Formats: sequence, structure tokens, C-alpha cells
Amino acid sequence: MAAPYELIYYTGVPGRGEHIRLILEEAGIPYKDTQFLSVEEAKKSVMTSLNSSHENPSYFAPPLFKHGDLVISQTPNILLYLGPKLGLAGSQENDVYRVNALALTALDLLSNEVHDTHHPIGTMLAWEDQMEESKRRSKEWVQKHLPTVFAYWQRALKNEKRGPGPWLLGDTFTYADLVLFQCLDGAHYAFPKAMKQARETGKYDKVFKLYEDVKARPNVAGYLVSERRQKYQDWGIYRHYDDNDAVAE
Amino acid sequence: MAAPYELIYYTGVPGRGEHIRLILEEAGIPYKDTQFLSVEEAKKSVMTSLNSSHENPSYFAPPLFKHGDLVISQTPNILLYLGPKLGLAGSQENDVYRVNALALTALDLLSNEVHDTHHPIGTMLAWEDQMEESKRRSKEWVQKHLPTVFAYWQRALKNEKRGPGPWLLGDTFTYADLVLFQCLDGAHYAFPKAMKQARETGKYDKVFKLYEDVKARPNVAGYLVSERRQKYQDWGIYRHYDDNDAVAE
Repeated sequence: MAAPYELIYYTGVPGRGEHIRLILEEAGIPYKDTQFLSVEEAKKSVMTSLNSSHENPSYFAPPLFKHGDLVISQTPNILLYLGPKLGLAGSQENDVYRVNALALTALDLLSNEVHDTHHPIGTMLAWEDQMEESKRRSKEWVQKHLPTVFAYWQRALKNEKRGPGPWLLGDTFTYADLVLFQCLDGAHYAFPKAMKQARETGKYDKVFKLYEDVKARPNVAGYLVSERRQKYQDWGIYRHYDDNDAVAE
Repeated sequence: MAAPYELIYYTGVPGRGEHIRLILEEAGIPYKDTQFLSVEEAKKSVMTSLNSSHENPSYFAPPLFKHGDLVISQTPNILLYLGPKLGLAGSQENDVYRVNALALTALDLLSNEVHDTHHPIGTMLAWEDQMEESKRRSKEWVQKHLPTVFAYWQRALKNEKRGPGPWLLGDTFTYADLVLFQCLDGAHYAFPKAMKQARETGKYDKVFKLYEDVKARPNVAGYLVSERRQKYQDWGIYRHYDDNDAVAE
């Protein structure tokens, strides 16, 4: 019997682990997931792994992914491992590098950057201790970064060299589309006003179309209404604070 | 004749492009590099590539790497492409994912995080317009994050499961060691006081030994004293500001 895929992550928010769930759900592959443990048990499982020196290499933070004897960390790295196995990393020579570049870029621009709007001074400080800076960074992100970021994804989706089709690689659906979807979904939660404005400009129609198209894929749609899909909270990467919910200039 | 390797990056600072230079220098492979153009010409070359929709996929930011018809972006992705070709991504099954995880972790903790100490509010604002926040984030980074980050790398280098040897994968030298070296080198420039203190505690001896061991590798040592190695400046990822040069509590 083949070894199961196993996600080790905090429970209670979608977080970075969500990218791993989405690729497995899209592929229709069963997997173990620490989210089905209690919050306390999941935390213990993550911490036991983190404090252990017994895995190779040691890792800094979850998500972790276990497959047989292999335990690896880093969201884009886990996706890179799974992508080709699940047929979601393209089909042409070097597509794996194209897909990885797109996934890394989505995570940089719409996950790490959006996270940092609520923790601009440091992740070890509570939000309450960096509220003013957080408000300033959020406004800066909405007014200056969001238009640049969305213009980039619109350009990437209009790129003729990739061929026709709605996906980042044209007519080939890959995990980069899933990553972009999840990042946009989180940004909707964090910045509902700015996302509504961005959609209404009509300038980023291909980006919002991709968001809707991924959401409507049968396996993704089924997953999103299942109890396996966790809700955003007031902790984790994507958070909503009224103070930060800035609008375009 | 095989297609040449070509780095497209800003000229004038080591920056993210430096990781690509180091892997090629260690392997002793010739490469084209826009740093040998004038600042103006290099900027033009980067901008022409960035504004073009003719590459597949479109990319958001340099470094870019060209090899024949392929043009890819994202530092860890370029390293992933080159690593196995240059024999610097390990030799065991799945080592490529171990090396990628380590490289991504070094870039997160010691490149992106250190960059953000001087731009906590936004990359489109000048440092002068976020000086106070920058000073606060730098102090937070030095006092809270640096000890955690260095304890992690020390743990990774003491991990017995990886086997004996001074490198992150034990006795197998990989590009993850090069990435960690370059990140530590940049951190020395940005935070000389804190790095000196960290070294003197003796708690991170394996981390500083790796730094020295990489620096002493013949091809790396030759490169570092060549004119191809650019100097840190008051722009780019690693910057030194006296105001930010915090000390441990």
C-alpha cells in the first residue's frame, strides 16, 4: 500500500496549509490532516515536530508534509513535490519552473505582503502593539501595492505567448491557479472594500475571472462547502480589522 | 554549442542576484551578467524584460534568468533550476526538496525579514518616510527574531539525522549552504553590532563556522575578491543605518 499524504499544520484557520489542502482536494486524493485533531492536539503535533531534531532537514515552521520517510517544509516546496505527482504542474518541458515561479510570486505578493499589513513591526508582537503601523501599512498596501500587483496578474493572464485559455499557463490548469485563487480569497477577507473597488474598475477582469473559475471547479467547489474548509479568524495570515480596511485614493 | 546562462538583474548591489552568481561561481561556470553593463543599461535591460508580455510566464521582479528559450524568475526557483545541473542539489532521493526548503527558509528569515527592517511600511516609500518604524522593527528583529533564527540554524547544523559533516546536508555541500552564507554576509553588513554579539555568545558556533567555511571555498574565495563581487550600498536588500544597528537586550 502506498504511503499516505499527511499535512501537519495548526488547526483552526486556513493559513498556509490551505494551499496544500487545495492541491490534494483538486486532485481528489485522500490525505491525513492534523486539522481533524483538536486545537490542542494539532498544536502538540506541530510543536513535537518542530522541536524534534530527528527529521532531516530540521524545519523552522509549519506547514510540514509527510510522505513515507520524507518530511518536508515550506509551502511552495510541498506544492513543488506534489504538483508533478498529481498532474498539476504543467505538461511541457520546464513547466515545473514556470508554475513554481508563479506560485512563489503569488505567495510573496498576496500572502506574505498581506500578512505583513497586520504585523509590520514583528510577528512576535501582538497586533494591538503595532496598530498604528499596521493601519499605515494597510493603507499603503491598498493604495500603492494592490494596483501594481493586480496589474501584474492581469498582464500575466493576457500574455499571448502562454497560448489561449483562462489559466496562468493558458489552457493547462496548474497548482499556480489554485495558489492565486487562495491568495485572492484571503485578500477578499482582509480587505473587502479595496477588493470590491478593484473588481468594479473592470481593469482586472481576467484576475477576478480566474478567481471565479477556480472556485467553480467541481472538486474545489465541493471542498469549499465541506466542513474540511476552515473559516478565517482573528489570527493567522488573513485577518480583517476595520481600521485596516482602506480604500483606493 | 550549449546556450549560455544569463543573469538579468540590477547592477550596483549584490542583491538577490547574488545567490545566482554564487552558485555559478562555485561551479566554475561562465555566465553572462547584466551587472557588467552600465547602471543605466542594466536598468533598461531589466525594465525591457519586465514590461514585455513576450516571455512566458510574465514576471513581477528580477532576478531573471535566461537559458536558451527559457526565461524564469524568482531567486529560489532559479537556484532550483541550476542546482541539479551543477551538482549542487544533493545526491539522495528527494534531496532537491530538502535543499529547496533550506534555501527558502534562509531567504525568508535572513533576506526578506532583514530587508523589511528598513522598509516596514512599504517598498514604495523612501526609508526617510518610515525611519521611526524602521528603527522599531530593527530593534525587534535583533532582540527577538535573531536569537530564534540563529538557534534554528544551529539546530539544523547539529541535526544528527543528516549525518556528519559541516554542511546543511551533512557532508554534501549544496547551494543551500551558499544561500545561507550570502544571507549571513548581508546581515553582517546591516547589523554589525548584533552579529558580533551573536558570534561572541558561542551559542551559534556551527552557524558561524559554516559562514567561514563557505567563504574559504576556493571558487567562492576567488570570486569574493574579484571585481565581479559588488559592494553593499545604501540601497538594495541589505543596508546599514546607524539608527537601526541595535544590540541584544
